[in-house]
Amino acid sequence: MDEQGQPSAALLLIGDELLSGRTQDKNFPVIAKFLTERGIDLCEVRVVSDVENDIVAAVNALRQRYTYVLTTGGIGPTHDDITADAIAKAFGVEIIEHPQAVKSLHQLFTEIGVEPNEARMRMARVPDGAELLINEKIKAPGFRIDNVFVMAGVPHIMVLMLEVVGDLVEGGAVMLSRSVRIERGEGDLAMPLADIQSRYGDVAIGSYPFKENGVFGANIVLRGRDETMLIAALAEVEKLV
Amino acid sequence: MDEQGQPSAALLLIGDELLSGRTQDKNFPVIAKFLTERGIDLCEVRVVSDVENDIVAAVNALRQRYTYVLTTGGIGPTHDDITADAIAKAFGVEIIEHPQAVKSLHQLFTEIGVEPNEARMRMARVPDGAELLINEKIKAPGFRIDNVFVMAGVPHIMVLMLEVVGDLVEGGAVMLSRSVRIERGEGDLAMPLADIQSRYGDVAIGSYPFKENGVFGANIVLRGRDETMLIAALAEVEKLV
Repeated sequence: MDEQGQPSAALLLIGDELLSGRTQDKNFPVIAKFLTERGIDLCEVRVVSDVENDIVAAVNALRQRYTYVLTTGGIGPTHDDITADAIAKAFGVEIIEHPQAVKSLHQLFTEIGVEPNEARMRMARVPDGAELLINEKIKAPGFRIDNVFVMAGVPHIMVLMLEVVGDLVEGGAVMLSRSVRIERGEGDLAMPLADIQSRYGDVAIGSYPFKENGVFGANIVLRGRDETMLIAALAEVEKLV
Repeated sequence: MDEQGQPSAALLLIGDELLSGRTQDKNFPVIAKFLTERGIDLCEVRVVSDVENDIVAAVNALRQRYTYVLTTGGIGPTHDDITADAIAKAFGVEIIEHPQAVKSLHQLFTEIGVEPNEARMRMARVPDGAELLINEKIKAPGFRIDNVFVMAGVPHIMVLMLEVVGDLVEGGAVMLSRSVRIERGEGDLAMPLADIQSRYGDVAIGSYPFKENGVFGANIVLRGRDETMLIAALAEVEKLV
C-alpha cells in the first residue's frame, strides 16, 4: 500500500533488446493503463538486461517496496530466457517443473506437431511455490510467486496473461483525472497553478507543455480520488483558459 | 565502466504522466540509440514519478553504479518541475541561479515578448557546481553535475540537449550487431543456439520470437565488440536457417 492506503505496483521489463534500442517496448503503456483502471498506483518502472544478478536485485528491491510487481520478458525456451531462474534465486527457492505446465505444454506440442524437447519443456519450469498464469488461451504459462507476476514479453501473449493477473490482484479506489488545454505559455500559468496546487493537496496537478503550429500552450492534468475536490480544482484551473 | 571495461549508462525518466499511461515516452529509444552508437552500454532504465525522495534515491543508486546517468523531465517552470531541486539534494549541494542561464533566459523572454517572472526564472536554477547543457538553439538549458546529465522531457528539446551531451561523454568500442531471421520455432532453435552461445562467450546471442501470417520464427540477434568472433558466430547461426 502507498501513502494513500492504495495498492501500489512496479513494473520490471527484462531484455537486452529493449536497452540496445533495437526493440521498442509496447507493454509498459498497456500495463500502466491496466493498473490505472484498477486503482493500483504504478510507482516505478525498471528496464534491466538479461543478466541474472541484475534481475534478482531489481525484483528484491521492488517486491519489498510495492504491493505488486509485474515483470515481462525472458520466459521462452532459449538460453537467454533466464527470468524463471532469476525469480527463484530472488526468492531463495528451487526451480521445479510445474505438473500443470508440463501437461499444457505437452498438449500444445501435440497440437502443433513438434517434439517436446528439453528446450521446449524449459517453459514448464517455475520457482517452487509458484502458481501458473494460465487459461485455455495460454499454453506456455506465466506464473505468480507471492506478489510477483511473471509474464511473457511478446505483447499479444502478455495481454492474455494480464487478463489472468486481473483476477488475482486487488484494486483500489480508481484515480480520476481531468485535463484542460490552455493556449498560454507555462511561464504565465506557473504561479496561478502553484497557488491552486497549494490549496488542493489531494489533487495532483501536472503541466505538460506543447507547441503546435507556432502556438505555445500546456495540457493541465488533474488527478485525484476525491471527485468533489477534483471538480473544485478543475473549476479553478478552467479560469486560467 | 562495466565488466568489459566499457563506459556504462543508466537512464532515468521522470514524470507522473508516464506512469499513469497518459503519455507514452518517446525519449528512451532515441537515447538508447545515441548511447549504442557511441559504444556506451545502456544497462538500466528507471521511470519514477514527480516525487522528490524517489528521484533522489534513484539518482544516487544509479550515479554510483554507472559511468553516466541521463535524466529526462521535470525542468520546466511549473510547480511539478522538481528535478533540479531533487538532483541538488541527491548531491547534497545548494541550488543556485546560474548566471549564464539567467542571461540566456532573459534573451529568450525579450525575443518572445514575455515577462521574466519568478516562475520562468525557475528554469535558471541548477545545483551548485553544475555546468549548463546549452548552445545557440537551446535557451532554457539542461545541466550536468558530475556524471549526471539532466535534460528536458519534451522530445524535440531533449534531442537538442542530447547533442550537447554527445560532446561531453567519452564513448567506447562500439557494439556490433548482426541479425538472422529464421522461420523455425524457438523450441527447435534453442538447443543449437545454446551450444553456439557456450562457445562464443564474447558474443551475446538473443532470440526474439515472432509469428507472422501463421509462420513461427525468431530473429536471432548477435552482439559483440570483436568483429572476427561475431562473424564466426554468425556463420554458425546461419547454418540453422
